[in-house]
Formats: sequence, structure tokens, C-alpha cells
Amino acid sequence: MQRPAFLVAARTANNPRSGIREIFTLANDKAARGETVYKLMIGVPDVKTPDTVIDGTIAALKEQKTQYTANAGIAELREAIARQVNNAHGLSVEADQVIVVPGAMAGLLFANLTIDPGNRILVPTPGYPNYKMQAGLTGLELLHYRLGIQNEFQPDLDELESLLDSAGAPIGAILINTPGNPTGTVFNEETIIGIARLAEKHGVRIISDEVYKDIILDAGLEHISPAKYAPDLTLLVGALSKKYSMTGMRVGFLIVPKHAIKDTEVLGEATISCAPSICQWGGVAALEGDQSQVEGYDAQYRQRRDAIVEILAAADMNFTRPNGAFYLMVDIGDAGLSSRDFALRLLEEKGVGVAFGSDFGPIDPEHPLYAECDRLVRIAFCSGSMDELRVGTERLCEFYREQCA
Amino acid sequence: MQRPAFLVAARTANNPRSGIREIFTLANDKAARGETVYKLMIGVPDVKTPDTVIDGTIAALKEQKTQYTANAGIAELREAIARQVNNAHGLSVEADQVIVVPGAMAGLLFANLTIDPGNRILVPTPGYPNYKMQAGLTGLELLHYRLGIQNEFQPDLDELESLLDSAGAPIGAILINTPGNPTGTVFNEETIIGIARLAEKHGVRIISDEVYKDIILDAGLEHISPAKYAPDLTLLVGALSKKYSMTGMRVGFLIVPKHAIKDTEVLGEATISCAPSICQWGGVAALEGDQSQVEGYDAQYRQRRDAIVEILAAADMNFTRPNGAFYLMVDIGDAGLSSRDFALRLLEEKGVGVAFGSDFGPIDPEHPLYAECDRLVRIAFCSGSMDELRVGTERLCEFYREQCA
Repeated sequence: MQRPAFLVAARTANNPRSGIREIFTLANDKAARGETVYKLMIGVPDVKTPDTVIDGTIAALKEQKTQYTANAGIAELREAIARQVNNAHGLSVEADQVIVVPGAMAGLLFANLTIDPGNRILVPTPGYPNYKMQAGLTGLELLHYRLGIQNEFQPDLDELESLLDSAGAPIGAILINTPGNPTGTVFNEETIIGIARLAEKHGVRIISDEVYKDIILDAGLEHISPAKYAPDLTLLVGALSKKYSMTGMRVGFLIVPKHAIKDTEVLGEATISCAPSICQWGGVAALEGDQSQVEGYDAQYRQRRDAIVEILAAADMNFTRPNGAFYLMVDIGDAGLSSRDFALRLLEEKGVGVAFGSDFGPIDPEHPLYAECDRLVRIAFCSGSMDELRVGTERLCEFYREQCA
Repeated sequence: MQRPAFLVAARTANNPRSGIREIFTLANDKAARGETVYKLMIGVPDVKTPDTVIDGTIAALKEQKTQYTANAGIAELREAIARQVNNAHGLSVEADQVIVVPGAMAGLLFANLTIDPGNRILVPTPGYPNYKMQAGLTGLELLHYRLGIQNEFQPDLDELESLLDSAGAPIGAILINTPGNPTGTVFNEETIIGIARLAEKHGVRIISDEVYKDIILDAGLEHISPAKYAPDLTLLVGALSKKYSMTGMRVGFLIVPKHAIKDTEVLGEATISCAPSICQWGGVAALEGDQSQVEGYDAQYRQRRDAIVEILAAADMNFTRPNGAFYLMVDIGDAGLSSRDFALRLLEEKGVGVAFGSDFGPIDPEHPLYAECDRLVRIAFCSGSMDELRVGTERLCEFYREQCA
């Protein structure tokens, strides 16, 4: 007799698949067949993990620091993180507000779990696809706010306010991401202040994804956290992953307002026990050690950004010059292809891998912001040689022109 | 004007606190004051992390294997885990059924997320407190089944069946834990077969927490996984943490039935990205390397178990001799104290730290199984010297006699 196998719950089975992953797999398959592929689709830095991190982690291993740490992380790392955000971003965070987590994704998950299921969460659009996945898992409903290319992907405060005023389930949080993925946009200080005031006025928390907070590509520009203006309402999510090129070592953090420490610190025990002990020690070494190796990394990202921007400008493409992170959005809407088809054909015909915009948009193709996202593709410039990035970008422009012709 | 701070959602804020942690903190405070403390309350092995793991992880660090891995883990580790469970426990698992996660807690979380919110989950009682925490976070309702000391903490199949037949929300899973925490009980093969048949009959999945599967304290006894008898219904949760004394390195796994691979593999991307890359390589070294260092660990646990059992038996205590893991439950019900008060006073008056039974029971003190759990305290014997364990156990017996007198 054939017994029925169990069904996986809809919240998991119907979770949207990542389009970046689709392109990534296809690009790897193509490369495996010996074809040349220009990989402009992935957000994994190819700069070295600094010696400070490697050495600090090895020392922890040799000292057998291999057992559970406190759920919220080792005191040394919590203190180092508080010092870093206070010094670099003008905050007033105490170490006991810092919860160390195995990567920023876990920090976002914790932040979502502080919201009642059924509530809505305002997410930037285009925005990181995992926001959609996590909302599904934690029982939150998505409400998309617009980041328009014509506004250089800065949010519109009036639109945010009207969404906060809209009817429906209560709004639990405004999620912001600055510097942004996929846009590379650093939100203006006035925008951050405006969001902080809106959050206060409506009694809504801010989940601030600041994973790229230390990657600012323009001198004189500063990363501003809403924790500076609304410390009691901000859940700040960060990680050492990108700045220190240690994405696989899983050291992230969530900074919670003082009033929320007691009610959120239980999450670590209930979900992940703790971030990897040895990597936490590597994180201390990263933050407290010599920064000269790391400071060179921004210069590399800047050079790459400038090279790509020059090519796109020369080709008369519509795009926004990013001033943070290592991503850039290009408008390919007039090519007459969906962004996914554009990306698939670009890979097939020109060997160039990019992420497609609809992946960063609403799930529902009928949503008005879907079409806007579907006009865009994302270039990531954190890895690959200058030649690879240049040729890849040139081929993208070439393919676009061919489609528009 | 004073703005209201946000409230943390009930699913998080009301999550039950761990009593083990309470005692652990008090014991540490006492030790910090210079007082002698016999720590019998924690499940963190104090045997060395084997050289294979340390060396394998250092090699990965030196090779800069510090970036994201595939969400489900590196192929080498997935294959090594499949080989290990197949060889050691007679399963037929393929590598693509193995999802590597940052510790077994994350694997349990994934397993719970495969169940529709609102469903019930059958949990062993006494059982690991985190089962309660996770049910709260994932929107599942707890249904407690009894592990009675008079039955050496083996479940009663008739009781399980009547719970499966009970009215109420659908039952999504039977959770089992063998070898068990806090009981040290290894479920009989007939029990496992019975549970597999019940699961098939009722179309319910089995979440099998096998974190201690490799720690069997009696020669000739074997760990049996329900995946052997109900492979299409079993979600097997395991970790390298306990056997290889690498709890802080966060390498666990979830083995899913073939039909569920596609629907569950998305969870990694949506929650934790991946388990720490370098620790995954350490895990490969653990499983594939020389096992002689590790094999000695079981002998240590066995010696410790035997010493404690001898003292408890000589003192005429009511307890169950554990045959797996490194825990043991002692009946202190006739002392006339709640298990928490017993543990608090035992620590205060005799300097002995144990975990209290009600922490492993239902949250509701009116639940019939609460009182049963409240008659028990747990001794952990994975750490400390033989002297510490002996004196601690003797003092526990002494304190119990004093209360009964």
C-alpha cells in the first residue's frame, strides 16, 4: 500500500525562489562547458579576507574556543561592534543592545519575529529578494514602497506616509536598506530623518538593513542610520561579511533599542544557539585590528564603479551612479524584453550574467511596481577583473542596442 | 513629547525562558564569588575538539574558504554526512537529501517551518525546553506525550495513538528525541517501529532529533532512526556538535525525504544563508578523518555515568540509568519542594548545580505532566572531573535525604 508523503507547508514550499540563484547556476553551467562568462551577478567580494580575521580565527581554534558562546555572543565582540557603530556612525549604542547572530539574514529574521504575525511590513522596491522570503516565513504581509530610478532610488516620504495611513492590517515596520541592494543608493540624511519622524508619528519600528554601511564609494558622503534619530524604534541589522570579505564566516548582528533587549534576547537560544564561536573571535580581530588592508578594498570598488559608469554613460544608458555598496541598476526597459528574458538571453548570447529586476520586485506581476522593476537589471561589481567588468558591461550595452534597434 | 516604544510580538516576548540558563547564571555568579560549585547542569562536553577538526578548519582558513557556500552546504560535507548516517545507522540517504545548517537548532527550526501554522506538534515530556520555544515562534501548538520514569522514559505507543486520534487542530508532526535529553534514554527498536507505523497510519511526519545519536553508553546497544522505517515521513535533525565536541562551531544538518528536497531547500537562503564555511570543512575533516581520538570520548562518558549511577543506587534514589547521551534524571519528588526550589536550594546550600525538571515540562502548571516533570532534576555528566561529579552527586543525595527527613 502506498502511503501519502507529507506536504511541506505553503509558507515554506511556496516561498519565492531567488532569480539571482537561477542566473548564477546557469552561468556556472556555461562556464563549466568551457565557455567564457562575464559574471556581473553576484554580491560576493573577491578581495581577500584580511589577515587579521584569518589569524584571529586560527588563534581561537588553537585555544579550543570551540564551544557554545552566550546566545547573544561574546562580550568582546558585542563591545567591539558597539564601539564601531558609535565611532563610525555617531550612535550611542551599549554593548548589551548588540545581539550577535550568524549573519545578517538571521538578524533580519529576528527583527521580523518581533512583529506580530498578520501585520504588514513596508519594504523597498526594488529590494533584496530575501525580504519577501522572510515575510512569508514569519507570517508578515508585504507592502511595497517605491524606489524610482528617476529619484536615484531614494524613497518618497509622501508615498511612505500615505502607505502608513492606508487601510488594512496594522503596519509593524518600515524596512529600509542603505546603502541599498540592488540600487547602490545611500539614503540622504533628510530622508532618514523623515523616515524616523514618520516612524515616531505612526508608532512603527524601523528595521534598518545596514549590511553595506561601511562601503561608501564617494568621499565626503556618510552613512546615516535611523538609529541616530529614532534609537527607540530602530532595529539595526549589520554584518562583518561584506566589509571584511568574510561572507561565509557568518558574523552578523542585530542592535535593538534598550527597551527591547529583554524581550528579544531569547531569540538566539530558540533558533540558532549562537554565532560560530571561532568566527566571533575572528570578528573581534577584524574590528579591533589594523584596518589598512581593508581600507584598500573601498578603493577597488570605487575604481570598478567608475569604470562601469563610464562605459554606461558613453553608451547613453539610463542608470543611477551608485554611491554605496557594489551594485548598480541599469534601465533596459526599451529592449522589449522582460528583465528575466533580457538576463537569460544576455547570458546565452553574450556570455554576461546579471541579476534581473523583477526578482527585486513584488511577486504579483499585476502590482504596479512590478513593471518598474522589470525594466531593470543589476550589475554587481565586487568581484572579477577590471577587464571582465569592462567587457561584460560593454556587451550588455551592445545587447541592449541590438534589442532596441 | 514622549513617543511610545514599540512592543515586541507575543510570540517572541512571551517565549519561555530557559531554566537551565537561570541555574547556569546563578552557579557562575557563585563561582565568581570564590565559592566552590559542582556544575552538573550543562550539556557542553569538556573533552577536546579533536585535532582533525582544528586542523581541517585552519586549513580552510589558510585557503581563504571564507565566502558563502551553497545554501545547503558544501557537497563534500553533504556526502560525508550521508555516508556516516548510512554506515552507522543503516539508512539509505543520498547527499542531496542533506541540508547543512548552523547547528541542530536551525535544523529543528527548518523542520517546524515545514508544518502549517496552527497545527499541533507532539513533543516528548520531559523534553528539551527549546521545543517549546520553537513552537511559539513558528505558530505551532504543543501536545505533550509522556515519558515516564517508571517506563525508563520510553514513550507509550497507546498514548501516542490516542493523542493522534484526539480532536483539535491537525497534528503536523511527532517529535522524538533519541538518545534523549534530559533522560538519556535510547528508544527501543520496537518503539521506533511503532512510531513509524503510527506516523504512516495518520499521515504525520516525524521530526527526529538525533543530536546524540553517536553517544551510546552501552555496548551492544544501537541507535535506531525512524528514517530507517519511515524514510518518506522522517525529518532527521543531527549535528557534529556533541560527538566531536564542537558545539560552538555550528555544524548541524537536516535530512529530508526525497519528495521534500525541492520544497525545503529554499529555507537556507531565506534564513541563514549557509552554515559557516570554514566549520563545514572542519566537519568534513571530523567525519572523514581518524576517529581514534573521538572513540575515547564515549569511554569517558561511560565512566562518568557509571560513577554517578553507583552513588545514586547506593543512596537508594529513584532514577533511570541512561544508555545514551550524557544526562540522567533523578526523582526528587518526595523532598517536598518544587524541582526549581530544589535546584535553587541545592545550589545555594550545597553548591551543586542541576537542571530542574519543570523546565522540561509543559508551560502550564495545571497540565497533568507538569507535576511529573516537577518531581525530577537532571544531572549532566559531560564535563567536570570525576571528583566533581562524585562529590556533586553525593551532595545531591545528602540534600535530598535532609529534605525527606
